[in-house]
Amino acid sequence: MRALVFDEGLKAVDMPIPKRGRGEALIRVSLVGICNTDIEVTRGYLAYKGIMGHEFVGRVEEADDADLIGKRVVGEINIVCGECQMCRGGNPRHCDNVKAMGINGWQGCFADYVVLPERNLHVVPDLVSDRQAVFTEPLAAGIEVLEQVHILPTDLVAVIGDGKLGLLTAQAIHASGHDVVVLGKHEKKLKIAESTGMDVSFVGEFTERVDVAVDCTGNASGIETAMAIVRPKGTIVLKSTFHKGIPVNLTPVVRNEITCVGSRCGPFPPALRLLEKETVSTEPLIDAIFSADQMTDAFEAACTRGSLKILMDFRA
Amino acid sequence: MRALVFDEGLKAVDMPIPKRGRGEALIRVSLVGICNTDIEVTRGYLAYKGIMGHEFVGRVEEADDADLIGKRVVGEINIVCGECQMCRGGNPRHCDNVKAMGINGWQGCFADYVVLPERNLHVVPDLVSDRQAVFTEPLAAGIEVLEQVHILPTDLVAVIGDGKLGLLTAQAIHASGHDVVVLGKHEKKLKIAESTGMDVSFVGEFTERVDVAVDCTGNASGIETAMAIVRPKGTIVLKSTFHKGIPVNLTPVVRNEITCVGSRCGPFPPALRLLEKETVSTEPLIDAIFSADQMTDAFEAACTRGSLKILMDFRA
Repeated sequence: MRALVFDEGLKAVDMPIPKRGRGEALIRVSLVGICNTDIEVTRGYLAYKGIMGHEFVGRVEEADDADLIGKRVVGEINIVCGECQMCRGGNPRHCDNVKAMGINGWQGCFADYVVLPERNLHVVPDLVSDRQAVFTEPLAAGIEVLEQVHILPTDLVAVIGDGKLGLLTAQAIHASGHDVVVLGKHEKKLKIAESTGMDVSFVGEFTERVDVAVDCTGNASGIETAMAIVRPKGTIVLKSTFHKGIPVNLTPVVRNEITCVGSRCGPFPPALRLLEKETVSTEPLIDAIFSADQMTDAFEAACTRGSLKILMDFRA
Repeated sequence: MRALVFDEGLKAVDMPIPKRGRGEALIRVSLVGICNTDIEVTRGYLAYKGIMGHEFVGRVEEADDADLIGKRVVGEINIVCGECQMCRGGNPRHCDNVKAMGINGWQGCFADYVVLPERNLHVVPDLVSDRQAVFTEPLAAGIEVLEQVHILPTDLVAVIGDGKLGLLTAQAIHASGHDVVVLGKHEKKLKIAESTGMDVSFVGEFTERVDVAVDCTGNASGIETAMAIVRPKGTIVLKSTFHKGIPVNLTPVVRNEITCVGSRCGPFPPALRLLEKETVSTEPLIDAIFSADQMTDAFEAACTRGSLKILMDFRA
């Protein structure tokens, strides 16, 4: 099968179809998305080596659970033990023995086939197209903000960053009825946010004070902006992960008694629900769809500054 | 009157007794405490110039409110406008136009007399001695943690730092029935914590995982320790303010979805209540009491590495 592998360098290779273990499913991959975390992996994040990728939609070919076979699915990226304190305490995404598809100890989905535990899979509703479904994982990460922070109906929320994650996170919050402004640097991307009914502003031109600021910039300037615009006793949500952390001066957090909440992966079911209802718009986020025969080109396109979502199609 | 003034250097000076304005009280100072924030002020924090100090107990000599005259009082350090959005929203300590006694735009209490708005004053219960009452302000800052974070009965709380603020904050949390361990570097100070019934450990020797970690170290190592010991989805409370912020790498906060809460000044009434019940022990925190005629010596003692609370006595 075709696969995009990272092992010091990035290589498109031909390799055997993986074998599934007990309780696992073998999935024929249809469409995958390249995420900034994939780019961070190629920069050394978590020292991962192996098949890349964690955003996919595909169809189950083999599984212990006969009901799953033939079903169109998306898959949670964390492979968990189910037995540690975090798993038993209701936080399996923070399993002590966690592996993460294409990121940490588990082969990724940038390949014709991927194996995942059956319990990681979610069947995609018929109304959700593959092009939408491939956004389930990053949209779930945006929804995680709503799982973590009780945003009030009277709150003004700023999402800082008009990239893929920012536009999905902002829409997830906006879809739940909140007043959201997207702060960015790119006219084209802010136009996308505007087209979904949200307020937008260039970062430097925004002078209001917000109750909640969500940093989706992927760089240190995001939290600096957040600290500058959030009100005292307000909340900052940090969604950016880096291969190498960037030092931040937290003095304003203490002085203004701000709450900072780290935020990572989120729940799939509400993401599929939002996609099914079409309350979140994903089509404008697609920059290009590459054939799986052009995986290194696709990755290069995803690394281009300012690019939005790059998909790779394994159906042909 | 005698006063300790910071204006580039630190000087004990003789100056006129201040005049109170409408709604303000003139207080004859009895006993004051030197706080790390005072030391930070002499290093440039908020570029303050004027009479130093914000921890005091004294007796009201003049006030509009006749009931206050002659009363023994402590005073909240933030002088607020009462009219801005933060004040009207129930967060006066974050007033947009805030001044802070001895820190920012308002003369401090390291002097024979200090002026404060009457509404800042709290009458000290008879059962609370001056030596206890002078701890009201820093104890209130410790209690602020309980105002901000819902600590569960099943939570293990680590207070990092065995200095003045750490020992008070840990006791405040412990007094509310929680399981608290104090992590420090000084055998003598950890012994104080132990004597109040709390668990203690040297920082490097602690290997448990905690639900809540409170950084009272006053330096960057505190939050690094906190990030290392707090469980995923746990809470870190940041109580250290610096004259110059220290960069911190927040990657673990995002990866482990930790909540960081900045925490500063707290409410006086519960602090006075704890002092009255003697559920918080302040006497072991007193390193020395200097006469007000030795203010620069007292300040030097407070700056000595490892010192606990230095008080200055204005009664003679």
